Amino acid sequence: MGSVMAEYKTAEQMAVDQREISVAEFFEKNRHLLGFDNPTKSLLTVIKEGVDNSLDACEEAGILPEVLVKIKQLKQEDRYRITIRDNGPGIVKAQIPRIFGKLLYGSKFYKLSQSRGQQGIGISAAVLYSQLTTSKPTRIVSNTTKSKKPHEFKIRIDTIKNEPQIIEDVVHEKNFPDHGVHIEMEIEGRYVKGARSIDEYIEQTALANPFAKITYHAPDGRKTTYSRVVDKLPRRPKSIKPHPYGVEVGVFERMAKHSKSKSTAGFLSNDFSRVSRPVANQVCKIAKVKPSRKPKSLDHEEIESLWRTLQKTKLMKPPVDCLSPIGESVLEKAIKKDTKADFVAAITRPPSVYRGNPFGIEVCVGFGGELNPKGSGRLVRIANRVPLLYEASSCAITKALKKIDWRHYRVDSQGNLPTGPIIILTHMYSTWIPYTSESKEAIDAYPVILKEIKLALQDCLRKLGRYLSGQKRRQVEKQRQSLFEKYIPEAAHAISKMSGVSKDKIMRDMMKIVKKEKVNGEDVEKNK
Amino acid sequence: MGSVMAEYKTAEQMAVDQREISVAEFFEKNRHLLGFDNPTKSLLTVIKEGVDNSLDACEEAGILPEVLVKIKQLKQEDRYRITIRDNGPGIVKAQIPRIFGKLLYGSKFYKLSQSRGQQGIGISAAVLYSQLTTSKPTRIVSNTTKSKKPHEFKIRIDTIKNEPQIIEDVVHEKNFPDHGVHIEMEIEGRYVKGARSIDEYIEQTALANPFAKITYHAPDGRKTTYSRVVDKLPRRPKSIKPHPYGVEVGVFERMAKHSKSKSTAGFLSNDFSRVSRPVANQVCKIAKVKPSRKPKSLDHEEIESLWRTLQKTKLMKPPVDCLSPIGESVLEKAIKKDTKADFVAAITRPPSVYRGNPFGIEVCVGFGGELNPKGSGRLVRIANRVPLLYEASSCAITKALKKIDWRHYRVDSQGNLPTGPIIILTHMYSTWIPYTSESKEAIDAYPVILKEIKLALQDCLRKLGRYLSGQKRRQVEKQRQSLFEKYIPEAAHAISKMSGVSKDKIMRDMMKIVKKEKVNGEDVEKNK
Repeated sequence: MGSVMAEYKTAEQMAVDQREISVAEFFEKNRHLLGFDNPTKSLLTVIKEGVDNSLDACEEAGILPEVLVKIKQLKQEDRYRITIRDNGPGIVKAQIPRIFGKLLYGSKFYKLSQSRGQQGIGISAAVLYSQLTTSKPTRIVSNTTKSKKPHEFKIRIDTIKNEPQIIEDVVHEKNFPDHGVHIEMEIEGRYVKGARSIDEYIEQTALANPFAKITYHAPDGRKTTYSRVVDKLPRRPKSIKPHPYGVEVGVFERMAKHSKSKSTAGFLSNDFSRVSRPVANQVCKIAKVKPSRKPKSLDHEEIESLWRTLQKTKLMKPPVDCLSPIGESVLEKAIKKDTKADFVAAITRPPSVYRGNPFGIEVCVGFGGELNPKGSGRLVRIANRVPLLYEASSCAITKALKKIDWRHYRVDSQGNLPTGPIIILTHMYSTWIPYTSESKEAIDAYPVILKEIKLALQDCLRKLGRYLSGQKRRQVEKQRQSLFEKYIPEAAHAISKMSGVSKDKIMRDMMKIVKKEKVNGEDVEKNK
Repeated sequence: MGSVMAEYKTAEQMAVDQREISVAEFFEKNRHLLGFDNPTKSLLTVIKEGVDNSLDACEEAGILPEVLVKIKQLKQEDRYRITIRDNGPGIVKAQIPRIFGKLLYGSKFYKLSQSRGQQGIGISAAVLYSQLTTSKPTRIVSNTTKSKKPHEFKIRIDTIKNEPQIIEDVVHEKNFPDHGVHIEMEIEGRYVKGARSIDEYIEQTALANPFAKITYHAPDGRKTTYSRVVDKLPRRPKSIKPHPYGVEVGVFERMAKHSKSKSTAGFLSNDFSRVSRPVANQVCKIAKVKPSRKPKSLDHEEIESLWRTLQKTKLMKPPVDCLSPIGESVLEKAIKKDTKADFVAAITRPPSVYRGNPFGIEVCVGFGGELNPKGSGRLVRIANRVPLLYEASSCAITKALKKIDWRHYRVDSQGNLPTGPIIILTHMYSTWIPYTSESKEAIDAYPVILKEIKLALQDCLRKLGRYLSGQKRRQVEKQRQSLFEKYIPEAAHAISKMSGVSKDKIMRDMMKIVKKEKVNGEDVEKNK
């Protein structure tokens, strides 16, 4: 190797090397940012992105989802073929290449609405990962309606341009449902079992989406079908305008420059939620900006003055019809079905707000049944109906759980997390989940989010505590009764001798007393 | 609020909403990915990005760096004006807007060379953050040579297009050095002291760049100047071609499609490091590809076959002249100067390789002096001469430290990290640091990286252990001696009585013995 020293450069020489970097190349080099850290996690991320898109599309189209996930190990042991198929609305032909073959392309980024995907980067990142690790294109078949023919594409990403490359584009001739999307890709991956596995992810997805039918073919040949718990889609969340408290001055300025409103007062009242026309006029007055001014023409000082005034103005909280919880009774049914728990309780708390973003918390606790009586409890973290499997320790949900005084609720714990036959599902739903990273694995611990989770947990755990103390009382009662029953013949014999009444009658009467007590005991429990 | 339900959509309706998302908007919405999580960290990130660029440019141009960092709190208490000025080569006029006003633009992304910045996203992200939180443009003055006039720009980012917006572009009339860059921006931030503060960052930067002069004006008015420890730049690292072991098949395919080589054998031997022409020919033979084939014309199967063959071919490790350590003696001087430590030892290990990327580890340990004898030791993590302040627990350096058996080296510890008057600086330098996230705060714990850090640590700690045990022995010796001296008059008196020799002479002789023993003790120590 010729060890020639590198030469020093002038500004002019440095300028020659300067280039634009494609976002696809950036994420290819930094794929860990999108959840493709290692083969195990990458396998999960690919499936997550596919299933998220399927469920989002079905919900948006009002279709009860039916999703198939199939993982097949190929000859090379680190290679898998992933198939994801849904009965959703399908994708119109012209959009297929861009949705799968271009990073940062989508419909959700500019909308404030509760959905699984937020950024338009997920499924195209999976295509990128597939092509990086196997250099194979992704196959997509889609149809939007019976009257049309399904289209089949093979797509790659031109990473240097961040544009789709169409390898094949044919009318699909084989049997295909009337509508839906079918994706097939080959990736480098690793299939593991247990915590944070695909199996776990699918099971939790079924829990959080009890209106979906999910069929899962594991690489080892097992086929599992999760049937629906309810036959109704949750309320369709609306999208909302941003609330001023969640908008930074730089974004505020851009919104003004691009507003369709002709006046500043119109801009404030049309482009934001919870700013009425009178409030808008008043904000203008305080900020010393004429309400009739064109928002495009505002100068820097006026922008800042308006923004500061808005931040100080008392405004209503953002509307909450943009939020759609799973719901208490549905959650209870789902947990009951999955775990056969003896006890279940769910709570959906009224929505709250962090930094102008509305959000809600719901918690469902299950106990007993088929839950493993030994070891750690099952803690299920869900964000907008998507299970979170990694980064538990940095997640607001785990942090809230660790603040619970478990003894208070008669629940065993270790390291301040519950142990024993318990499952705790916590769901945060919002128009914008504050993930700690782009791979969407943990929720940022805003104090108000922590507080809401804690309140929901405490509510469910109080009910569990009562159940467990009732159970304890019933157990004591049962012991007392069985002890009593043991001595009845002896006692009856003695009483019979003293009173002359037949021993049989005395025994019958005594048994009646015991049973009545038991019945009363249960009545008391029910009235609680 | 009219609570009208959102409508269900068809695939056609959904298609209407699909849009391309600008990378600037993406990072604006996801600024935590780039280290702008909160005001405290954002202040640090802005300064880090500016200083990284200054030092990189100086080194590349062969200029001994002189960097000024100034933080001024503005009227609003969460607002700061940041000034960073260097004596580097400057930036040619045409490049200034793009370097500061466009994300994913730079010279380092496509190069494999050891530098602070890797991605071309840092300083423009700072401009984006400034504009988001204050809506102010960034001011840049730069000159490249005495014969030219400095240019002054005010720049914003058009986030929707990810393109620079030039607000002002004038010839700078005030006094300005012959060459260098001066940046000024206003940001929302928070200034704190102590761990992970700007103060700490500047001090550690001076430690890791002992050839730089750094002047720092803190917001509280304090001015600190870190003078140079050495007057020589470290060896200028060369950039290298990628090593086949670090290239995934998708990237390999793209390289083939874009190769300037006319033959496949030429492609393999010209575009990669450590593939000689004979090896290239052999790889072609095994992969059943004619060496004369145009790389552009290779089909998918041939690409994969070539790539798989390369992965299995025994190749030399990548060259190491692309690496530039700080160096043992320089590190020792820097630590000595900073801490006045009684003991210092540094080790620069021979370079190693992870996934085809060459890297090196160096460690410097200091003990005593002005180091705080109480509480935790000072652990300084450095990557390519940049201090890492956040995410310590997920960093390979901390993980390696936690595996040390501290008692073995006579160092106190708590939670398996050292306590007492100790400083441990660990530096990883590489053509590609595997950060765990884009905000570059922790190094991914590849086993070979962990191992190298541990070996370097053990080497320094063995020396420290010997020093500490020597110190201990000297202490015992001293105690013994002072005890002995205490009894000399008494003993001399007794001996004088028995022997008739004068007490004074006996005392003098005894003192000589004591002193000789001490001298011998030290000799033994030195020969060890």
